[in-house]
Amino acid sequence: MAKKTKNVKVTFLGGVGEIGKNMTVIECGEDMIVVDMGVSFPKEDSPGMDAIIPDITYLKQNIKRLRGIVLTHGHEDHIGAIPYYADELKRVPIYGTSLTIGLVRRKLEKSAKKCNLITVAAGDTVVLGGIKVEFIKVCHSMAGACALAVYTDGGTVFVTGDFKIDNTPIDGKQTNLQRIAEIGAKGVTLMLGESTNVERKGSSTSEMVVGQNLANIFQANAKKRLIVACFASSNYRVQQVLALAHRYGRKVVLAGKSMKSIVDVASACGELNVPKGVIVDGIGKLKPSEALILATGSQGEPLSALNKLSKGEFNKINIGSDDVVVLSSSPIPGNEKSVYDVINALFRKGAEVIYDSMNDIHVSGHAYEEELKLMLTLVHPTYFMPVHGEYRHQYKHAAIAKALGVQSKNIVIPNIGESYSVTAKGIRKHSNVPAGNTYVDGVILEDGEAVVSDRRSLAEYGMLLLLAEADLERGTLIGDVDIVARGFNLTDEVRRNVKNAVAEAVNTSDFDKADVDEYAKVIKKTIRKLFGKDRQFPIVIPVVVEA
Amino acid sequence: MAKKTKNVKVTFLGGVGEIGKNMTVIECGEDMIVVDMGVSFPKEDSPGMDAIIPDITYLKQNIKRLRGIVLTHGHEDHIGAIPYYADELKRVPIYGTSLTIGLVRRKLEKSAKKCNLITVAAGDTVVLGGIKVEFIKVCHSMAGACALAVYTDGGTVFVTGDFKIDNTPIDGKQTNLQRIAEIGAKGVTLMLGESTNVERKGSSTSEMVVGQNLANIFQANAKKRLIVACFASSNYRVQQVLALAHRYGRKVVLAGKSMKSIVDVASACGELNVPKGVIVDGIGKLKPSEALILATGSQGEPLSALNKLSKGEFNKINIGSDDVVVLSSSPIPGNEKSVYDVINALFRKGAEVIYDSMNDIHVSGHAYEEELKLMLTLVHPTYFMPVHGEYRHQYKHAAIAKALGVQSKNIVIPNIGESYSVTAKGIRKHSNVPAGNTYVDGVILEDGEAVVSDRRSLAEYGMLLLLAEADLERGTLIGDVDIVARGFNLTDEVRRNVKNAVAEAVNTSDFDKADVDEYAKVIKKTIRKLFGKDRQFPIVIPVVVEA
Repeated sequence: MAKKTKNVKVTFLGGVGEIGKNMTVIECGEDMIVVDMGVSFPKEDSPGMDAIIPDITYLKQNIKRLRGIVLTHGHEDHIGAIPYYADELKRVPIYGTSLTIGLVRRKLEKSAKKCNLITVAAGDTVVLGGIKVEFIKVCHSMAGACALAVYTDGGTVFVTGDFKIDNTPIDGKQTNLQRIAEIGAKGVTLMLGESTNVERKGSSTSEMVVGQNLANIFQANAKKRLIVACFASSNYRVQQVLALAHRYGRKVVLAGKSMKSIVDVASACGELNVPKGVIVDGIGKLKPSEALILATGSQGEPLSALNKLSKGEFNKINIGSDDVVVLSSSPIPGNEKSVYDVINALFRKGAEVIYDSMNDIHVSGHAYEEELKLMLTLVHPTYFMPVHGEYRHQYKHAAIAKALGVQSKNIVIPNIGESYSVTAKGIRKHSNVPAGNTYVDGVILEDGEAVVSDRRSLAEYGMLLLLAEADLERGTLIGDVDIVARGFNLTDEVRRNVKNAVAEAVNTSDFDKADVDEYAKVIKKTIRKLFGKDRQFPIVIPVVVEA
Repeated sequence: MAKKTKNVKVTFLGGVGEIGKNMTVIECGEDMIVVDMGVSFPKEDSPGMDAIIPDITYLKQNIKRLRGIVLTHGHEDHIGAIPYYADELKRVPIYGTSLTIGLVRRKLEKSAKKCNLITVAAGDTVVLGGIKVEFIKVCHSMAGACALAVYTDGGTVFVTGDFKIDNTPIDGKQTNLQRIAEIGAKGVTLMLGESTNVERKGSSTSEMVVGQNLANIFQANAKKRLIVACFASSNYRVQQVLALAHRYGRKVVLAGKSMKSIVDVASACGELNVPKGVIVDGIGKLKPSEALILATGSQGEPLSALNKLSKGEFNKINIGSDDVVVLSSSPIPGNEKSVYDVINALFRKGAEVIYDSMNDIHVSGHAYEEELKLMLTLVHPTYFMPVHGEYRHQYKHAAIAKALGVQSKNIVIPNIGESYSVTAKGIRKHSNVPAGNTYVDGVILEDGEAVVSDRRSLAEYGMLLLLAEADLERGTLIGDVDIVARGFNLTDEVRRNVKNAVAEAVNTSDFDKADVDEYAKVIKKTIRKLFGKDRQFPIVIPVVVEA
């Protein structure tokens, strides 16, 4: 255990109290490192956004002390923000295992950006100023995932990263429980533990079980064409599908850009073994029994390969009664409707659809309650902070830590923007740092919150643009107002009512008729009153020009 | 069994291939009846809408033959559209059991509309021209639910309505399986069977079990204030909460308009027994141990009582560590995010939150797979059509009917707008009738699809309004374009770029500079090009006025 001469400080720029956008800053003395730099995916409450990334003002303020960025694994919610900040961070070394770094490199190439990427192996320790970081193998739904032991003069911080405990992983590489136990025995000051599946009782199922159930589907549907959808990033799932296709004499067509990209990257770095000749470019003249389409879109994403297949819009492939579609996935909360829309569309085309609610063809990559307990027991930290989950998950994870003997006063549920020092006397909270959602829609938006809020209003209420020409000398409008509507039902009757109401209001109201802005105010008020009685509240944009 | 002299015809104006908006037309000869007239609730793909109701063009075309509307039960997706069409239908008698009619009456009062409402009891048969309809008691999540046996000269149509088979219902009134068996034995030509829970194995749990688990929560939290959220329409759930409050010496505050309304209606018609003095007007000086708040908002609805409670915006009630909040419900697909947002907010306030994923405090009102099989076995129809579900549910229900001996050729999965006659020779499909979604946003929209589509676009892309003044004689713009943005990030730099790009395009493009519309086209094209390179696609509204 490092002699404690300083305090270690953790600051949360993402990944707490919400899903996604993971980013944690760890500091000791003059040294600062960042763990992960992810995105979150916009839901219906931020329409039209490409991604939501962390606010890195705090990093920019401290850029001279930033020794490195360490990545736990290659999922978007842990690496996705890197390309957006590549220019600001180009001098900062970024460390990760081969698949993780391979995926970051591919992302940077797409954005024509460069960073200082350094590949490490599980078991390696990197020195980042006065901080050392050890990468420890953990199982997850993709290869190359690591927990991190962060050794500082203020004590050891153990970051679980995303993990599960799979005793029969398909690549034989188990979560390194022995090393974790050893680190725990030496003394861990603070543990940051992922909380995603804390509400699930017992232990997660091994990835191997999925392979067995998929094999049953291959056997039962030998004469049908198979279409399997899964996350492209689930390289173990992809591995099992490729191996089964090879075993059962099927050729595989990869459908979806990210599927092709990840097969490339994962096989190049040795994390995916593609049987020779199993992948082909197109369906060509393959009979149903000889073909398998491995597709993206298991979350019902509108532009994904599976969605296009369900609409007959993918490479002229017609889905029909010769097809069995397997969704080897489960809907992420919020995606249920789009997933079931795709499933319904596939059934309508005559395909048989096999999905999670009735079959064990998906397992989670996140530890269940008993696995979280085991991790806490092995690491045995003095202080504990549950991360990576909504507040309800953090809350329950905190309760588990307490039940396992961590003292209540040593458990903190952190929020985004909060900063804590772990001192000899306990945990001390600092002032909050700038943090929150930075929105990306094509480009990084300067005032994303306002844009998102406006878009929600437009969607909720629609818009009316009213164009009028005013004769300021005579104090009247010239002719009728012109009306442009978007997302608002403008019938002939409504149009007439608007024109009459505006004309009457301008004629009968008492206002400064030499001021165009005053006309605009009267028009806005009139429209609000006119529609408010029917509980319609269009966004009104009056444009009054001087004649 | 009626002698078959005519064909019976069924037409689906709602309730098939989707959730909600149930409405089925049954005809024989000159007689027509309608079963249910419901709404569906808009999801994120139809933002800002109050409700989606069926298109009743087909009814209006046949209004002289319409003998009556029969309602299976009082849920919104079965009765909610009545007030919107009250004027068109005011001469048509509407039949239902007392709670159903009570709820319709309350809705009509709110809309200041009138209809011809007739209360029947389970067991009653009503004569509607040449058609007779028998109401048969079934269990569901609310009282007064009935299956319908529709006797026509073309044979009997059996409509299950929403149902479950609860052997221990809390009011002791079981699904009338004996009568259903009797009707089945006499011969049912066509069965329309609800399909909601076809994917759930086994049988649903009795409502009584919820009461037992809620009682445990009352006992374990005797010193805390209890807040229970459930659907207001679940009168059995409300009944159990009121009875438990009475037993454990708590006073109940009703929170939410619909909760108060339903307690009124259900107790007035004898379907809810409110223990004397148990309901009070406000929290007043009640200690936590003496109080229970029974609230709407179990689906996380933004304006509901529970949502307001979670934000401290309800009657000055502060939620804190003295509170235990019980969500006696489970999220309807699509509502997960809003439900969990409320749960997270309540946890953050320090409350203990108990919800479905970890406790048996909710049961479904819809039959599971084995109950659906029992119903099919008892009714034993010649023809079968699965209704009330998404296509995937209908598909699986059809497969069950086939497995139970209904001939494949006699099973049809109906879609909205489709019309079928059941003849001596089999099922004959007619041309489709007008059907689909009619949108309500304050008022019934004439062209709702276009409004909804525009709103989605506005939300997805934001909007730029460009206002220019053109000197048509000189063929130039006067001054810069004015820019108004909504839902689009208009930085100083963007503003400059837009002005310059428009000025340059107008000066250098070759177009008819005497035509204001041509300026507008050039401006639109210029803006699309300017932002398209960053993959931004704002809705552009150019307004060019003549100087």
